[in-house]
Amino acid sequence: MRPSGRKLDELRSVFIETGVTKHAEGSCLIRMGDTHVLCTATIEDKAPPFLKNTGLGWVTAEYGMLPRATNSRTRREAAAGKQTGRTQEIQRLIGRALRAGVDRSALGERQIVIDCDVIQADGGTRCASITGGWVALRLAVNKLLKAGVIVSDPIIDHVAAVSCGIYAGQPVLDLDYVEDSSAGTDGNFILTGSKRLIEVQMSAEGATFSRAEMGELLDLADKGVEALVAAQKAAVA
Amino acid sequence: MRPSGRKLDELRSVFIETGVTKHAEGSCLIRMGDTHVLCTATIEDKAPPFLKNTGLGWVTAEYGMLPRATNSRTRREAAAGKQTGRTQEIQRLIGRALRAGVDRSALGERQIVIDCDVIQADGGTRCASITGGWVALRLAVNKLLKAGVIVSDPIIDHVAAVSCGIYAGQPVLDLDYVEDSSAGTDGNFILTGSKRLIEVQMSAEGATFSRAEMGELLDLADKGVEALVAAQKAAVA
Amino acid sequence: MRPSGRKLDELRSVFIETGVTKHAEGSCLIRMGDTHVLCTATIEDKAPPFLKNTGLGWVTAEYGMLPRATNSRTRREAAAGKQTGRTQEIQRLIGRALRAGVDRSALGERQIVIDCDVIQADGGTRCASITGGWVALRLAVNKLLKAGVIVSDPIIDHVAAVSCGIYAGQPVLDLDYVEDSSAGTDGNFILTGSKRLIEVQMSAEGATFSRAEMGELLDLADKGVEALVAAQKAAVA
Amino acid sequence: MRPSGRKLDELRSVFIETGVTKHAEGSCLIRMGDTHVLCTATIEDKAPPFLKNTGLGWVTAEYGMLPRATNSRTRREAAAGKQTGRTQEIQRLIGRALRAGVDRSALGERQIVIDCDVIQADGGTRCASITGGWVALRLAVNKLLKAGVIVSDPIIDHVAAVSCGIYAGQPVLDLDYVEDSSAGTDGNFILTGSKRLIEVQMSAEGATFSRAEMGELLDLADKGVEALVAAQKAAVA
Amino acid sequence: MRPSGRKLDELRSVFIETGVTKHAEGSCLIRMGDTHVLCTATIEDKAPPFLKNTGLGWVTAEYGMLPRATNSRTRREAAAGKQTGRTQEIQRLIGRALRAGVDRSALGERQIVIDCDVIQADGGTRCASITGGWVALRLAVNKLLKAGVIVSDPIIDHVAAVSCGIYAGQPVLDLDYVEDSSAGTDGNFILTGSKRLIEVQMSAEGATFSRAEMGELLDLADKGVEALVAAQKAAVA
Amino acid sequence: MRPSGRKLDELRSVFIETGVTKHAEGSCLIRMGDTHVLCTATIEDKAPPFLKNTGLGWVTAEYGMLPRATNSRTRREAAAGKQTGRTQEIQRLIGRALRAGVDRSALGERQIVIDCDVIQADGGTRCASITGGWVALRLAVNKLLKAGVIVSDPIIDHVAAVSCGIYAGQPVLDLDYVEDSSAGTDGNFILTGSKRLIEVQMSAEGATFSRAEMGELLDLADKGVEALVAAQKAAVA
Repeated sequence: MRPSGRKLDELRSVFIETGVTKHAEGSCLIRMGDTHVLCTATIEDKAPPFLKNTGLGWVTAEYGMLPRATNSRTRREAAAGKQTGRTQEIQRLIGRALRAGVDRSALGERQIVIDCDVIQADGGTRCASITGGWVALRLAVNKLLKAGVIVSDPIIDHVAAVSCGIYAGQPVLDLDYVEDSSAGTDGNFILTGSKRLIEVQMSAEGATFSRAEMGELLDLADKGVEALVAAQKAAVA
Repeated sequence: MRPSGRKLDELRSVFIETGVTKHAEGSCLIRMGDTHVLCTATIEDKAPPFLKNTGLGWVTAEYGMLPRATNSRTRREAAAGKQTGRTQEIQRLIGRALRAGVDRSALGERQIVIDCDVIQADGGTRCASITGGWVALRLAVNKLLKAGVIVSDPIIDHVAAVSCGIYAGQPVLDLDYVEDSSAGTDGNFILTGSKRLIEVQMSAEGATFSRAEMGELLDLADKGVEALVAAQKAAVA
Repeated sequence: MRPSGRKLDELRSVFIETGVTKHAEGSCLIRMGDTHVLCTATIEDKAPPFLKNTGLGWVTAEYGMLPRATNSRTRREAAAGKQTGRTQEIQRLIGRALRAGVDRSALGERQIVIDCDVIQADGGTRCASITGGWVALRLAVNKLLKAGVIVSDPIIDHVAAVSCGIYAGQPVLDLDYVEDSSAGTDGNFILTGSKRLIEVQMSAEGATFSRAEMGELLDLADKGVEALVAAQKAAVA
Repeated sequence: MRPSGRKLDELRSVFIETGVTKHAEGSCLIRMGDTHVLCTATIEDKAPPFLKNTGLGWVTAEYGMLPRATNSRTRREAAAGKQTGRTQEIQRLIGRALRAGVDRSALGERQIVIDCDVIQADGGTRCASITGGWVALRLAVNKLLKAGVIVSDPIIDHVAAVSCGIYAGQPVLDLDYVEDSSAGTDGNFILTGSKRLIEVQMSAEGATFSRAEMGELLDLADKGVEALVAAQKAAVA
Repeated sequence: MRPSGRKLDELRSVFIETGVTKHAEGSCLIRMGDTHVLCTATIEDKAPPFLKNTGLGWVTAEYGMLPRATNSRTRREAAAGKQTGRTQEIQRLIGRALRAGVDRSALGERQIVIDCDVIQADGGTRCASITGGWVALRLAVNKLLKAGVIVSDPIIDHVAAVSCGIYAGQPVLDLDYVEDSSAGTDGNFILTGSKRLIEVQMSAEGATFSRAEMGELLDLADKGVEALVAAQKAAVA
Repeated sequence: MRPSGRKLDELRSVFIETGVTKHAEGSCLIRMGDTHVLCTATIEDKAPPFLKNTGLGWVTAEYGMLPRATNSRTRREAAAGKQTGRTQEIQRLIGRALRAGVDRSALGERQIVIDCDVIQADGGTRCASITGGWVALRLAVNKLLKAGVIVSDPIIDHVAAVSCGIYAGQPVLDLDYVEDSSAGTDGNFILTGSKRLIEVQMSAEGATFSRAEMGELLDLADKGVEALVAAQKAAVA
C-alpha cells in the first residue's frame, strides 16, 4: 500500500557512517533511505553569555539544506539573507531534543554546536538530523572524556527521532516525501534510549485526529526509535 | 499548590471582548488571566500567489508582542530588523491551527490575515492567540456571509487551544508564566469544538515524560478546551 | 464644516487611563477620539554608552503601529525587516520632545524608554504618543522618587502635543484622519505646561502658507495644549 | 560674537556651480561656506506605481554623506546595511520641499530623482541640499521643456532653505557646525521665491523658545532665502 | 620541501564522482586531496530578465561552505544574514568562468544554476568548484541534448582551474591550506581544454612578484589543467 | 581606431588634486579622463581586533559610487541595504593592493581607512581608486611622520593600477567605458613604483586569450604605471 512497498511499521534502511570530515570533533553521515544528512559537532571552549558562572554547558544546533537537496531547487538561505521560519523551527527543535539527553552540569561551561546539513532530502530530515546529531555529539563528548577535559560522562541517554503519520487512512512509520506530502496527520516523535518521551509534535495537515490514532502513532514511534538507537550504538561502538 | 491558588484542572478566568477596533473586519481582546491578546482579522480580496486559479482561500496569522508586554522589556522586533525564531514558530502554528477549522474551498480565493498582538503576557500567549484568533476569524467570515460575498459557511468547527504541563510533579491546566518557567514538561493542545485533535506539541523542558503523563495532560486539555469553546460561543453570539 | 462636526478650535475628547499594564514602571492608554495609543515607560539601570561617566540620564522612545490599527492593513514592520522612515522620524521626535521636559542630571545615569504603540489610528498618533508618553514617564519617575533612587524630581514641566492645520481654508485644531488627508498645510506643535515651545513642525502638503496663518495655528495649539495638560494632571493625580 | 566672525544676519558665502557631472540631466555643486553638496537630477520615464494613470508626476530625493565629509569618519551607510533615521528624515524633507514648488500635473507621469551627496559637511547640509537640489531640478526640467517632452513649465516657484537658531542667546542666520552644536534652539526654514512658507521645523535642543524668538528667526530666514534665491537665479541663468 | 611531500609540479589526487544526488540534473563530488566540493546543476526554463527575447541563455553559480568544512567552525552565512564578500567574489568567478566555455545562443533562453558546496576544505575550493562545476554542467547539458530540448551542443570546451603560488621561494602547483596560508604570492588560473586562458588572478599576499615568476606559475597551471581536464573526461565518459 | 582617438598605448589625461577636503588626514581628487574619484584617508588610533598586541597596523579601503556617477542612475547601496558583490570585490582589492606597499610593522597598531568615492564614472574606477588612494595614504602617513607619532616611514613603494584589454582585436591601455563594454578580454594590473607586480586580474569577458596577448597587456601596463607613478610624485611633492 505504501508507495515504497514498505510495511506499515517498516523503517527505511538506516546507515550511519562516522568520521566523515577530518576537521570536526565528531561527525557522521546519516542516511535514512534517500534522506542524507551530514552532522558535525564542534566543541567551543565558552558557553553562551547567559550561562556565565553557572557551571552549566550548552548544546545548540543549526540546520541547513543544500539548495538542490530537494526535487526542485530551493533558494539558498544565505543568498536570501535570512533563514526561513521552518529552518529556525527545526534547529530549535534539534537543540532542545539533544539537550534533553545531556547533563549540562557534567558538561561544564562549554558549548557543543551540532550542524545538520541536508545533502539530499526525501522526507524526515529533522528526525534524521536529531538521530545523526546525537551520534556526532556522542563522538565529540568521547573526545572530551578521553582528553580528560571532563571526567564524568554528560550524556545521560540516547536521543533519537522518527516521523509517523496517517497515510491513506493507515498509521505508518517513517514517512518519505511522497507520503509526507499527502498524509492527513503526521508527527515527529523524539524519545530517549529508555523510551521516555522528549518531544511529541503532531499536526493535522488535512484531517484532524483522534486520541486512538495518536496512540497508534506512538506505538509505531516506539518501535522505530528502538531500531534507530540500535543503529546509533553500532555507529559509535 | 499552584502559585495562583488555582486547582490543578482550573483555567484562568477567560474574557473575550469583541469589536474592539473600528477598522478590522473582525476583532477581539482575549484575556486569560493576565495574558491579554488583541486579535484582528483582515479580509484580503486575493489569495496568495501559490493558490492562483485553485478556487481555494487561505488563512494566515502574524504574531507580535509589545516590548513591555513582558516583565522585563523585550527588544522590539521591528527595531531589531527581524522576527525571532520563536515568533515565526508561533505565527506558523496559529495559521496552521485556524486553517484546520476552515473549508478553504467554501472561502474562495481570498485571504484572511489574523494579527495577534500580545498587550500583556503571563504565559500561554500562543494558545490565547489561537482561541481569540478564531473569534476574530468567525466575525470576519460572518461579514462575508452577511454581504453575500460567500454563500456557504467555510468555518467547519471551533478551534481553541490550551497549555498543560507537569508542574511540581503534578499535571496542571493552563500554565501561567511562573508555572511555565519551572515546569518539567509542558505542551500546547489545539482541539476542535468536537474534541478532535488538531495539534499536540509536548516538550520536555527539564524532565522527560511517560505516555501515562501524556494521557493525563490530554484529559486536562479536553476539559480546558470545552470551557474555551463555550467562551467563544458566548463572544460571537 | 468639519467632518466630525467639531468647532474649529475643538479638541477631540481626551481620555487618559493609567496603570493599564502590570509590568511597566509607568503606563497609560491615551484616547484622542478614535486614536488610541498605549504608552509604557521602562526604567533601565544604565544610560546609553555615550553618556558613560557624565552623570546624565536619557529618555528615548520607540513607536509602532499594530498592523490593523489603520483602515487598510499596514505591513507589520517586524515582518518587513525594518522600520519605515516615518516610524523612525516619529520616534526620534517623541524622544526629543520628552527630553526637553527633563533635567537629565537629576535623572542620573539611567535610561527611561517610552514605548508608544498605536492600537487604533485616526490621525494625530505622534501627538497622542507625546502627550501619553509624558504621563507614562511621569509615573515611572514617581516610582524612582518614591523608592528614593533619585532625590530631586527630574521632570521640569509637562510636555504635550497637538496637530493643527488649514482644512478647507480654515485653521483647525486636532485634525482627525479625514482632515489630515486633505489639509493643505498641517503641523505638529509641542509645548510645555508653561506654554514654551519645544518643537514646531509645519509642512505644506498641498498649499504653501503665510506667516499669518502660522500665527493662527500657533494660537490654536496653545489652546489645545492647555486642555491636554489639564488631562495629564488629572490622570497622574 | 559668532565663531566665524559673521554678523548675526549674515549668510556664509554661497557658490553654485552647475553642470558638474556629465551624466545627470541636471547637476550642481553648492557650497555654503565649508558645506559642499553635489546635487544631481535624474529623469525617469515612469512615475511610482501609486501614481499610475493619474497623470501626475513625482519628485523624490535621496541624501547621503561621504564617510569623511565629517570631522571624524562616519560609518558608511551602505556598509552598515541601512540608512540612519536621520538620513531618511532628511531625504523625505528634501523631496517634500521640492514637490511643493512643482505642478505635478504639468510634469506628467514621470519621476525626477534628486540625489544630494554631501562631499564636505560644516552644518546646514539639509538646507544646502534643498537649495542646490532645486537648481538641479530646474536644469533637468529645462531639458524636458527644450526637448518638447513637456510643454508647460511644471516649476511654480523657487524653493530654498536656510537654518536659523538661537546661539549664545542671539538669533543667528545660517548656523555652521560649531554654532549648530551648541545652539539651544534651531530650525530649518524652507520658503518659496515669493516668500511663502513650505516647511518650518523648529526644535529646542537645549532650551525651549518663545513665540517672539520664533518670529525673529522667521525674519532672518526671510532675509537668507532672498539671497539664496538670487544665487539660484544666477546659477541657472 | 612541500608539507605534503608532493613534488613542486604535483597535483593532489583528484577524484570526480558523478550522479551523487538523485534530484539534480547534473551532479558530482570532486575531491582534490582533502578539499571536497559537491557540485550540482539545476536547469531552469527561464533565463534571467535581462536576457528576455535575446535568444541567449545564462549560466550562473552559487558557492557555500558548510560551517565545519574548515578547521575551526565558520559562522553559517544563512544565520549571519548575508554572504561574505569572499563568497560573492568566488561565486561570481565560478559563473564567469563557466560561461566562457558556453555558447549561450545554442543554450537558448534558459538558465543553468551551478551550486558548489564545500563539504570539507583544504585550500583551492574555488578551483575545485570550477572544475567540478563544469562536470555538473556537462551532465545537465547532456540531458537537454538527449531530450531534444536543444539540438546543438552549447558547450564549446572544457573549463578547469588550479591554483599555483610561490611557496618558500619555489613555484608550486595546487596549493593546499598550509601552503596557501604562508605563500607570498598565489593565483588562480582558469583555462579551457585547449589551453586558452579564461581568467588569471595573481595576488601578492606578502611579497610582490616578477614577470618571470608569473611565467613559471603559468607553466605549472598549464600542466595542472591538463590533468584536470583528463579527470573531467573520465568522469563524464 | 579607439573611440576616443587615443593611441593604443596612450593613457587618458591624469590630474591629481590634493587637499580637497578639510577634514581628512589625506585626500585627493583623481581624474583619469572622465573618471573622477575622491579619495580620503582617515587615521584611526586602533588597529582591528585581530591585530591586537601584534605591533602591526592595517590599511583598509571602502569603495562607493554616487548614484548618478553612471550614465543611467544606479540604485544607492545604502537604500538597497547592502553593498553589491562588485563593490565588495573592489574594496577588498584596493585594500590588498595598498597593504602590499606598506610595512605594517613600521605603521604600528593603528589603522588607515581609505575611502574611494566615485563622483563620475567612465571606466577604470577601481584602478583610479588605487592610484588616488595611494596619494591619500601617502599624505596621511606624512602627517604621522611630521607629528612624530611614527618614526620610520611605513610606505615602501608607490602602488598604482591601470586597466588594459583587447579591444577590437588590439591590445589597448587604460580602457574607458565604451571600450570596456565591448572588450573581449580585459584586466587590471597593479604594480609598485619599481615595477614589481602586486596583482594581476585578467578575465575573458567574451573571448579567451593567449599567453602572448597576456604579455602584450603586461607591457602596456608597465608603461601606464610609469606615468601614473610620475603623477603621484608630482601630486605629493
